[in-house]
Amino acid sequence: MKIQIVKNAGFCYGVKRAHNMSQKAIEKSNGINVYSLGDLINNKQVIGKLEEKGLKVITNIDNLNESSSLIIRAHGIAKEIQEKIKNKNINFFDATCPYVKIPQKAVEKYNKLGYFIIIVGDKGHPEIIGIQSYAEKNNFVVCKNKDELPIQKIVNAKKIAVVSQTTLSLSILKKIVLELLPLTQELVVINSICDATDIRQKETEELAKKVDLMIIIGGRHSANTTRLYEISLNFTKSYHIETIKDIKNEWFNKDMFVGISAGASTPKNIIDEVYNYIKNLAKLK
Amino acid sequence: MKIQIVKNAGFCYGVKRAHNMSQKAIEKSNGINVYSLGDLINNKQVIGKLEEKGLKVITNIDNLNESSSLIIRAHGIAKEIQEKIKNKNINFFDATCPYVKIPQKAVEKYNKLGYFIIIVGDKGHPEIIGIQSYAEKNNFVVCKNKDELPIQKIVNAKKIAVVSQTTLSLSILKKIVLELLPLTQELVVINSICDATDIRQKETEELAKKVDLMIIIGGRHSANTTRLYEISLNFTKSYHIETIKDIKNEWFNKDMFVGISAGASTPKNIIDEVYNYIKNLAKLK
Repeated sequence: MKIQIVKNAGFCYGVKRAHNMSQKAIEKSNGINVYSLGDLINNKQVIGKLEEKGLKVITNIDNLNESSSLIIRAHGIAKEIQEKIKNKNINFFDATCPYVKIPQKAVEKYNKLGYFIIIVGDKGHPEIIGIQSYAEKNNFVVCKNKDELPIQKIVNAKKIAVVSQTTLSLSILKKIVLELLPLTQELVVINSICDATDIRQKETEELAKKVDLMIIIGGRHSANTTRLYEISLNFTKSYHIETIKDIKNEWFNKDMFVGISAGASTPKNIIDEVYNYIKNLAKLK
Repeated sequence: MKIQIVKNAGFCYGVKRAHNMSQKAIEKSNGINVYSLGDLINNKQVIGKLEEKGLKVITNIDNLNESSSLIIRAHGIAKEIQEKIKNKNINFFDATCPYVKIPQKAVEKYNKLGYFIIIVGDKGHPEIIGIQSYAEKNNFVVCKNKDELPIQKIVNAKKIAVVSQTTLSLSILKKIVLELLPLTQELVVINSICDATDIRQKETEELAKKVDLMIIIGGRHSANTTRLYEISLNFTKSYHIETIKDIKNEWFNKDMFVGISAGASTPKNIIDEVYNYIKNLAKLK
């Protein structure tokens, strides 16, 4: 059996940064809980380890006060919650990925300038909830692809600004832009697709084209991992797993070429575990 | 023989406006010359008729003074000449097409805001010369299609603004936008393609698909007429003529379905003359 891991599999810059920030905050807290509003990153195993050290994941900030330490998750949070945190004088560490700040700031700017805002991404995803909070209530729409574009609203808007989830595939953004171009007088496109996502997707596609089987590692709720899995499925048999516990031995046989890729929230140790597990399996088969 | 004229052939809004403005200016001038800096519109025959009434086409404004009347052509002129005209206190009528003002203003705005400017159109065309004059010398490029994009300059520009000649085809603009999207963080597209151009092009394509022969009427130097001719050529035998003098009788035979289209600077009387000429020819054949 031959096994190959995608070069840029796993932790991206923003996730690494959030992980480091939370570790430092926990170290400094001297045993007092450090809070994270929602999951810090989209990986149960990583969160589990941080929780053992003193991280506490909460769903609202009502019970926090000036003596509490709060980490803002990599995906970012809504503007109104960020303001509440500031007003309550809570001690906070902003681990919002700098790449997520780009569409947040752009939405704030272009909403003020009177542009209608189109946010391309997954409705209800934490990153999108954060981004859309920077637009006025009736001045934006979230859509997943060009078929969800609200043509009537667009035709009435002379100026449109488009931002995207950082993990979006470029091809979806391209299709939306082509659809909008004839309908509006001025179109601003903020290309907030993260390079790391794009590179990881391309590498995953390349490897999927060569191998007999792809193993995609990442959280079940991780949008970017799911996208890797979808891309991979176009080219070869593929499985989306969280850890080695999800692996079924019968997927493999000794003449196989197996590829491994992993989402941006998957730590190196989990990738290594999967690699070693399959390698050992190869010896047995 | 069957003959059909494209519904929106001939004079567009901007040309009609410039033509009306010049006629009024000539009427008011009481026999004193009214000047036009370059051809008012791209049609020799129309210019000829206006010259008979008192219009004088000039190539520079050096000899004009406060008592002179000047019409600014439909294509617009360069910013520095417009300023010279104002400084010399020349009495001027601005017949610049309102649709041409859109890319002019956009280039001025986004150049000031630090965006690199891409002007899509024909290098050296009067409209483009006017538009590019609103950008700083080294902060813009004019290109005809995506193959002419200066990739090196683009990669170094984080923010890019794209404007187009009003007569551009949307498909060229779409290709350029797709090429730029992955290369920049913020892309502003001013869709300054005039509806009339687009509608005329579509109608010409539709008719060209149905007929045996297309006659495209318009000035030899008219970019939009040339484009109609190119579109038409993709589907059927086509000829670009200025007037009935360019028609060769052997092009036609009695069983033919003939289509007629005309550029934005072609007046109704020339289109009617061509229609009647071919109709009479049909009776003879």
